[in-house]
Amino acid sequence: MSDKDFLNNFDKISKIGWFENKGLNRLALNEYDIQARDELILQLSKIGAEINVDDAGNIYGSIGKEKKDIIAIGSHMDSVPDGGRFDGTYGVVSGLQILKEFSKDYLNHKVMVIDFTNEEGARWQPDLLGSGLATGIFDKDFVYSRTDKNNRRFGTVLKRTRYYGSSENRIKNLKPDYYIEPHIEQGPILEKEGYAIGIPIGIVTDIVEYYTFIGESNQAGPTPMNMRKDALVGASKFIFQIHELARKKAPDLVMTIADIKNLPNIYNVISGTVQLTLDIRSPDRKLAYNHSKIAKDMAEKIAAEYGLNLSHQVAWKLDTTLFDQELTKTIENVCKGLNLKYKFIYSWPTHDAMYMNKITRTAMIMIPSHNGRSHTKEEYSTDTDLVSGLKVLKNTLNKLMH
Amino acid sequence: MSDKDFLNNFDKISKIGWFENKGLNRLALNEYDIQARDELILQLSKIGAEINVDDAGNIYGSIGKEKKDIIAIGSHMDSVPDGGRFDGTYGVVSGLQILKEFSKDYLNHKVMVIDFTNEEGARWQPDLLGSGLATGIFDKDFVYSRTDKNNRRFGTVLKRTRYYGSSENRIKNLKPDYYIEPHIEQGPILEKEGYAIGIPIGIVTDIVEYYTFIGESNQAGPTPMNMRKDALVGASKFIFQIHELARKKAPDLVMTIADIKNLPNIYNVISGTVQLTLDIRSPDRKLAYNHSKIAKDMAEKIAAEYGLNLSHQVAWKLDTTLFDQELTKTIENVCKGLNLKYKFIYSWPTHDAMYMNKITRTAMIMIPSHNGRSHTKEEYSTDTDLVSGLKVLKNTLNKLMH
Repeated sequence: MSDKDFLNNFDKISKIGWFENKGLNRLALNEYDIQARDELILQLSKIGAEINVDDAGNIYGSIGKEKKDIIAIGSHMDSVPDGGRFDGTYGVVSGLQILKEFSKDYLNHKVMVIDFTNEEGARWQPDLLGSGLATGIFDKDFVYSRTDKNNRRFGTVLKRTRYYGSSENRIKNLKPDYYIEPHIEQGPILEKEGYAIGIPIGIVTDIVEYYTFIGESNQAGPTPMNMRKDALVGASKFIFQIHELARKKAPDLVMTIADIKNLPNIYNVISGTVQLTLDIRSPDRKLAYNHSKIAKDMAEKIAAEYGLNLSHQVAWKLDTTLFDQELTKTIENVCKGLNLKYKFIYSWPTHDAMYMNKITRTAMIMIPSHNGRSHTKEEYSTDTDLVSGLKVLKNTLNKLMH
Repeated sequence: MSDKDFLNNFDKISKIGWFENKGLNRLALNEYDIQARDELILQLSKIGAEINVDDAGNIYGSIGKEKKDIIAIGSHMDSVPDGGRFDGTYGVVSGLQILKEFSKDYLNHKVMVIDFTNEEGARWQPDLLGSGLATGIFDKDFVYSRTDKNNRRFGTVLKRTRYYGSSENRIKNLKPDYYIEPHIEQGPILEKEGYAIGIPIGIVTDIVEYYTFIGESNQAGPTPMNMRKDALVGASKFIFQIHELARKKAPDLVMTIADIKNLPNIYNVISGTVQLTLDIRSPDRKLAYNHSKIAKDMAEKIAAEYGLNLSHQVAWKLDTTLFDQELTKTIENVCKGLNLKYKFIYSWPTHDAMYMNKITRTAMIMIPSHNGRSHTKEEYSTDTDLVSGLKVLKNTLNKLMH
């Protein structure tokens, strides 16, 4: 019965800002994100939860009359443009369901659901802005001064909503004992290999770098092939070679170039400048750093070969995160008890759990993503998997509280 | 004396819409193009020229009391965004100068200068819109319905200017006897090889084709390298291989990919779709067509290798244009008489002369472009070369009229 309620509620909340032909458009603090937040507040109010908001707009709903441990469950409800319904929302609605089910019981513990603001980084960069401020990774000036593509500052937009709260409410000040984030895998492994649950050991190392190839823009027609300095040709060779390089280390490494800015981008004018971003990830920190170096050498060689200038800048380097081993072990035992096939995996995308791991014992529970699709309207997880993840979460909390 | 006047006038007109840090921004019918047209009209009025405008906004200024032959000199005054000062404007100001100098003499011929509208195709596609309508290549409905990037129709914009004239004035109806277009080379050959004048034999074959590589957009982090269908990787291999292929046939062939639309173009989301344009040019029609076929096979092979779908469409195929041999020979003799070092070349970009060649005896006179730069603020031709081209034009007209 409660599983059905959970699935209905997930369907309801995950469809706020959903367009059948496009996907979920719930960019942080846009009208749909606000609607989803309002719905969360309404449902929390109905069960008599204590509701707090901090100065990043993060929402905390908690139940439990006496304090022993504080166990937080969280994720986010914002999405990328034309994104999926499951990413983030699954974690928040699961936490909300736990509060609903546990509110009938006497609780010695405080159980909390958190909705973090701007996890995706789709509206304001960097990502994890809400959890970053709440855990003290980012300072307030930095967070508030981030601007979206319409040049609107995070701080200014937040203050115009109902979700501008106090810095006292930041999760760091509450000193939680545990943080658990249920999430979809966003990759193909669990489904492909037939697992119901993935237990992340941690989050992979992520190195993000900007490359710019600079050639010479000229009319394409009259400039002979051997007198060209074509930035797009150099960049293309780099993109292609990086792919081939990383393929040799699969599945331990991914290297991705997925954005490209080509100037002037006119069909009959030879490309003068190409900017692109290289994203390198691996559970093995050394492997990632080593390939960052190989990539740079490769770019330099290509630039020299095509008479191009090269500029290179590291955007960020995030070393491998390792989650709490004891909490991870508890989740494993719960899976065994439920007879659910589980696999220890790494999370390849970042999550709010990465920053929460810096202030408390943290773990994640992952469920399969159909065909590994994510950040697209095709993102999908089965009802069975949604319910399995919730069961694992529920039983893990029961173990922690007894 | 008159050379200095010519250079001063060229400087004046070519700087309407010029910004030192950006270049020339005289997109067809924008405020600067209108200013340049107004200046042309003013100067034509001062010498008592007959001025007509047709329904493409093309301006015709002519002198000559009696008709024997009609000799038209023309080009365009519109530019690409951030373009150069010499492209097009050189031909119009040269024609204007001829009218000024010849207006003092008794003329048995009608000598005309033409400013064609939207030659560049930078504001409305396709290019050569003005000469296309005036020569009957395009029909009026087609031309008027072209929209710019702000979705404004050519016809609507034209009608709001002072340059909306009558279809009776189209050059085709005037049955001109000759058309000569002075122009900068826009390529590096003449300067590099030490020639003062280039005499185009014709305009090369130009095949333009659209390619779309379709893969599968997914979160970059969690999708292993060997489970990806990355459209940007396939497109990159194509871009790089096309360059290497064409390089083997230099200088007889150019193949250029200079615009690319990558979707969704987010650094951590694997590319789902890449659209690009392949431009193939060669004086040798067969070589161009053959390489169009090789390119298609190459794209199909790459698509199969990376699990991508491919779509392909021919945008246009323009076969080699051959200019009037007799008129070209006359220009050669003029160069010999002036002791100017000349070279027979092909024009690799298209020009209004391509469509004019369909209705009358047509030729071009080309002068060197410094470093071959064009469609950029660095576009430059020396005063000496500007004057040499004018001299060749003047003497060619004198030969035709006597």
